[in-house]
Amino acid sequence: MRRRQFIQKTSLATAAMSFSHISIGKKKEKLGVALVGLGGYSTGQLAPSLQMTEHCYLAGIVTGTPEKAVSWQEKYDIPDENVYNYDNFESIANNADIDVVYVVLPNSMHTEFAIKAAEAGKHVWCEKPMAKTVKECEEIIAACKKNKVKLSIGYRMQHEPNTQQLRAFVKNQKYGDLRMLEAVAGFTMNSTGIWRLNKEMGGGAMYDMGVYPINAVRYLSGLEPLSVMAYESKRRPEMFAEVDETMNYILEFPGGLMANCATSFGMNMGRLTVTCGRGNFRLEPFQSYRGIKGYTSDGIQFSDQVKSQQAVQMDDDALAIIDGRAVMVPGEEGLRDIKVVEAAFKSAEEGKRISIH
Amino acid sequence: MRRRQFIQKTSLATAAMSFSHISIGKKKEKLGVALVGLGGYSTGQLAPSLQMTEHCYLAGIVTGTPEKAVSWQEKYDIPDENVYNYDNFESIANNADIDVVYVVLPNSMHTEFAIKAAEAGKHVWCEKPMAKTVKECEEIIAACKKNKVKLSIGYRMQHEPNTQQLRAFVKNQKYGDLRMLEAVAGFTMNSTGIWRLNKEMGGGAMYDMGVYPINAVRYLSGLEPLSVMAYESKRRPEMFAEVDETMNYILEFPGGLMANCATSFGMNMGRLTVTCGRGNFRLEPFQSYRGIKGYTSDGIQFSDQVKSQQAVQMDDDALAIIDGRAVMVPGEEGLRDIKVVEAAFKSAEEGKRISIH
Repeated sequence: MRRRQFIQKTSLATAAMSFSHISIGKKKEKLGVALVGLGGYSTGQLAPSLQMTEHCYLAGIVTGTPEKAVSWQEKYDIPDENVYNYDNFESIANNADIDVVYVVLPNSMHTEFAIKAAEAGKHVWCEKPMAKTVKECEEIIAACKKNKVKLSIGYRMQHEPNTQQLRAFVKNQKYGDLRMLEAVAGFTMNSTGIWRLNKEMGGGAMYDMGVYPINAVRYLSGLEPLSVMAYESKRRPEMFAEVDETMNYILEFPGGLMANCATSFGMNMGRLTVTCGRGNFRLEPFQSYRGIKGYTSDGIQFSDQVKSQQAVQMDDDALAIIDGRAVMVPGEEGLRDIKVVEAAFKSAEEGKRISIH
Repeated sequence: MRRRQFIQKTSLATAAMSFSHISIGKKKEKLGVALVGLGGYSTGQLAPSLQMTEHCYLAGIVTGTPEKAVSWQEKYDIPDENVYNYDNFESIANNADIDVVYVVLPNSMHTEFAIKAAEAGKHVWCEKPMAKTVKECEEIIAACKKNKVKLSIGYRMQHEPNTQQLRAFVKNQKYGDLRMLEAVAGFTMNSTGIWRLNKEMGGGAMYDMGVYPINAVRYLSGLEPLSVMAYESKRRPEMFAEVDETMNYILEFPGGLMANCATSFGMNMGRLTVTCGRGNFRLEPFQSYRGIKGYTSDGIQFSDQVKSQQAVQMDDDALAIIDGRAVMVPGEEGLRDIKVVEAAFKSAEEGKRISIH
């Protein structure tokens, strides 16, 4: 053990008595979270956010890269016994420090590790998209149900205050009844050799960014789409040989409500526009990590900035577990979005309107 | 002749010598325009705008309603010999005061009167949509060609300064290359018993408002769409038993460029959004008679207000005739939009992507 690490661990042990996450009686005040997959999102967003959370903390990590384990342990004071790799992951079942497993792996690996986490008796947080197929989503939901653990999908926007303001405008009909939705989300992907360009691993814009518009038009309307028409297009066909670069899709909801959506790895865009009977309002950007801003047709601007969207999300999800309440974004939410994604891919391929059942 | 009318006509005759629209040599300085159809648009927009134009003036009217003829003659000092009805319209050929016939009739009547005007040797201005079908558009173009008269379609936005600013941003790539287009145009139609709800007369949102998004994404991209996917939906199915209330449509352009569009008689909306490689910009509203405003992602706002969009349009079109230049928005522009409209209706009906040839 290197000197710095030793000092950190010692001070950690000394300080432990005052830590709020130490169990008091049966109800934990602060849940231990293990991040599975230490890629960009875990490194840049979730781990820093877990330093700000009140109801959960970074207790463990699961990684296939020993070098990452060392640097994370140093940076976040993670004890050796809370570090796992993909081979010994199942033994996390015996670790009382870990209450929640947050699956932040490439999309194709969500199902396997979400199910393993559930079978280890841990609550499951799963990044969006929930999985590659509806069938996989159903398997995850079944495993969590069977093992009596809670399942949350990492749709952080539902926890975000400006998004909640927008939902309130729809719900309380401040601008009249809901008449049309528009949502676009994308960024210019310039990296190559990454799993997000690999079909087998669940790459492509639709899985990564396209679920934001889908989730948004669903949570704003409170309705499930009846059918979809979708186009796939490529500006850089060589780079996107395996997966979709851009998808444009129209969703039909009950009662004649429609949504125009688009997603892309080929351009920066992020806008969620709501047209109602007596005005309109929008968030722009609507799904970036910070800087969400709202505008209404009568000149109101709103931009309630939280310190970390991810911290708010994880605290909400941790509190639901601690208090034994239903989580805000359960597995069914992820499943319903993947139903739309599957139908959109089919529509783009067949050039037809596809019903969503 | 009533006293007031007599006085007006006398004073008109006295003043005539100084009028700039009196022919000097062979080249007229101010063209005489006859409006065919004195409905809301002629009454509320075109006639008042023709009081502001420099290169054309309201010289005549064609109406099937004698009461309208009387009130228009009084209001605009129109001599009896420049007033026609639908039965004697062809005799306009012998009226040297009339250089241009502006067809502002219900959509189903555009073709008949545009062709009659061309055959009478008059230049033709035709309101959008040009006609109900591609075949009719071709017939109008052929008649104007055969009779050596100019044909302009009343897409006033192409003449509007903020729209031209937007087009310049695309053309000079101020924000990088063009990557996505979004355009929505609609208003809440609450009138009943009108031709815009009648299928035979060319009613419905797509013909009336849907051509704005189509024309806009075409003039911004400078490209012709390859295919369309469209949905028709109704919020008020009884009122819109014959025609479309709302249409959502995706257009595919060459090179992977896409456009998300929507139009409606069921809600107020008007927005034209352009996403480029280094930023985005929009007009909101983008096709209302006044108040067009532009916004860019780097905070620029622009709103160059002309006294009358219609006056600018008609002066542009009159000058093109006077100077023997090509008009800004020829018949082919109207035809190409109707190609898209026909394909969109077919797509909505069949639930399939439809190629546009």
